[in-house]
Amino acid sequence: MSVSSSPAVTGGVATAKGFRAAGISAGIKPTNKLDLALIVSDTPATAAAMFTLNKVQAAPVLVSKEHLASSGGVVRAVVVNSGCANACTGDLGMTDARTMAAETATLVGCPAEQVLVASTGVIGVNLPMDKLKSGIPQAFAALSIAHGSQAAQAIMTTDPFPKESCATVAVGGKTVTIGGMAKGSGMIGPDMVPSATMLAFVTTDAAVSQPLLHRALVEVVDNTFNAITVDGDTSTNDAVVFMANGASGATIGDAEYPAFVKALNAVCLELALGIVRGGEGATKLVTITVSGAASSAEARKTAKAIANSLLVKTAIHGGDPNWGRLLAVAGRAGVAFNADRAKVTIGSTVLFADGRPYDDRAPEAAVYLKGSDIAVGVDLGAGTAASTVWTCDLSAEYVRINADYRT
Amino acid sequence: MSVSSSPAVTGGVATAKGFRAAGISAGIKPTNKLDLALIVSDTPATAAAMFTLNKVQAAPVLVSKEHLASSGGVVRAVVVNSGCANACTGDLGMTDARTMAAETATLVGCPAEQVLVASTGVIGVNLPMDKLKSGIPQAFAALSIAHGSQAAQAIMTTDPFPKESCATVAVGGKTVTIGGMAKGSGMIGPDMVPSATMLAFVTTDAAVSQPLLHRALVEVVDNTFNAITVDGDTSTNDAVVFMANGASGATIGDAEYPAFVKALNAVCLELALGIVRGGEGATKLVTITVSGAASSAEARKTAKAIANSLLVKTAIHGGDPNWGRLLAVAGRAGVAFNADRAKVTIGSTVLFADGRPYDDRAPEAAVYLKGSDIAVGVDLGAGTAASTVWTCDLSAEYVRINADYRT
Repeated sequence: MSVSSSPAVTGGVATAKGFRAAGISAGIKPTNKLDLALIVSDTPATAAAMFTLNKVQAAPVLVSKEHLASSGGVVRAVVVNSGCANACTGDLGMTDARTMAAETATLVGCPAEQVLVASTGVIGVNLPMDKLKSGIPQAFAALSIAHGSQAAQAIMTTDPFPKESCATVAVGGKTVTIGGMAKGSGMIGPDMVPSATMLAFVTTDAAVSQPLLHRALVEVVDNTFNAITVDGDTSTNDAVVFMANGASGATIGDAEYPAFVKALNAVCLELALGIVRGGEGATKLVTITVSGAASSAEARKTAKAIANSLLVKTAIHGGDPNWGRLLAVAGRAGVAFNADRAKVTIGSTVLFADGRPYDDRAPEAAVYLKGSDIAVGVDLGAGTAASTVWTCDLSAEYVRINADYRT
Repeated sequence: MSVSSSPAVTGGVATAKGFRAAGISAGIKPTNKLDLALIVSDTPATAAAMFTLNKVQAAPVLVSKEHLASSGGVVRAVVVNSGCANACTGDLGMTDARTMAAETATLVGCPAEQVLVASTGVIGVNLPMDKLKSGIPQAFAALSIAHGSQAAQAIMTTDPFPKESCATVAVGGKTVTIGGMAKGSGMIGPDMVPSATMLAFVTTDAAVSQPLLHRALVEVVDNTFNAITVDGDTSTNDAVVFMANGASGATIGDAEYPAFVKALNAVCLELALGIVRGGEGATKLVTITVSGAASSAEARKTAKAIANSLLVKTAIHGGDPNWGRLLAVAGRAGVAFNADRAKVTIGSTVLFADGRPYDDRAPEAAVYLKGSDIAVGVDLGAGTAASTVWTCDLSAEYVRINADYRT
């Protein structure tokens, strides 16, 4: 069976056959912004999901895990609200999340356990259930293959723009579509307790067994959503859900898996980089590649340490080719490191190598840093493994956004 | 032998008997600011030291370690410059650090191995040795028991104020003095590559064996200098040096050890909190206490994670009683955590307990957060161990300081 993937196409969570979506305003946010999204598969879909590893888990995360376990990974719908995280909300929070699923299930005509729930927004405040009870039927009525973008808008908090992506793969003469939407580490504005949450929902019309779907999701998330960082904090509500309903008539087996994963990776990477570009106060997308590591894990650990270093993020924000900060973070990352063989690169300019500085090249690197797409590299000189992580710069605007006092 | 400690007294690194200090301008910094400090003991002192764990270690750190090893922990002098870190400077950097020690040793009249060296400032640039060679004799000539404050000023980079502290302990009718100075995570300003370095030098006129001195230093540093964080980055040049010359005539043995350590802790804590209060852009000193942990290590790990969370630091800066962020960081710290027994406190206000929010108390906490001395507490509900860590808030000014482009 021939398999080939095509460049990314325009589309989102409702582009794959047999999926519909909606995004409406239920009045949860203080303004009239869209705040309730619904994704429905016409037929029961196989689902794989990954949730926050935070030990403080929001009610929708706990309920979605329960439902996936009891349904055996079969999902018909996902209901998502923004404006309230339903986290740290006690027993009432659990009841409310279950009610959201049950109300959706009644309309869709499926068991409640086939509905997943996600929330993002204010922590420690209970959901306005009257608004959700009237909003869910409204969203159900608005379901359409043309409303993926509305859904992408409805899950935003202070994201500056919605994130959607889509790709196709040809599988034995049939076209498989993979589409998705995400929201990033945008914070809730004034009047609310902020919460940084990453949510992503991806759909495909391929038929994929649950174990293979799960394997693909884990593999791709590791190189996309888990390879980005805005401020290093992890939310109580993070969730990534992947649904496959088979509506294209194509089945993904071992032979088709590589091309399928490649397309899934393209979709998730575009969504993930969108989250970074839309990070609070971000003015630059920073690609950090650590090479010469003793293991992939050490390469990733070092890249994450650099990506979360305030000194690195502020230097890049200011256009300062401060290679010493990159080297110092690598030195404190707790990984194998050989200073004599280490190398630091900003763009294509080598600023430290062979155990000595090339600081006379700093002006060249400073010109490069005026751009908005920045690549920096650190070779640890200790092995052959590498890892790439993406982050954004740290601006005074970040502080302003996150220090805003709720009135 | 009776032992009692008295409240902190005014003084610094030259207050203990038999120590002299100096701080002069050698012209290393672009302005006429003091930039070269010297501490000399009249007689050979026992010394203990702790250095950065960063794998990228500056030349002065490597040379000081060599000298301590070859002298068997006997030190007559410490020479310190600011304005240039002599880090990532290759073989020439090592030669320069050795020359600094040798020039000092010649003047003091001791072997070079009895001189320690420290530097702070620009990374990746070699020392202006002509200036050091004329500056060291100038500093030697200025040595005085009255010049501790000048020394404290000479080690500053962009620290907003010098840090000095002193305490006395009565040991069997004799007064033992412990005095010190420190510089913090201040950054170098425009025209230079910034570097965040913590340096501390403490002297005492007690006679203390090298093993006991080392034990005291490790014990105290863990609860003071290692319990503070400004931005979580570790320098290539961090060093803490403790010298004991016995000039008071009092000897510290096992019986006197507890009171001696208590006084040393008081001195180091005052210096450490001075570093935090003087952190870049800091407007608030934040005391973070994590209790109910399964172990001290887990308590410390969680407290450090909270102290380094951008979301927590910006919320406190903005006076936002955002207890959800404290809870979320505790949840992602990778430690034992029981959400049902966990408790979050801001000042004396409990905002989360018994698995549910008390968000109606947020206005009370908001009033408290207007202060400049903030205490927050998280009980993990998983044990009985506790740990306290100090940090500062994160302001837009921090970003401005660290994003400054070197022209």
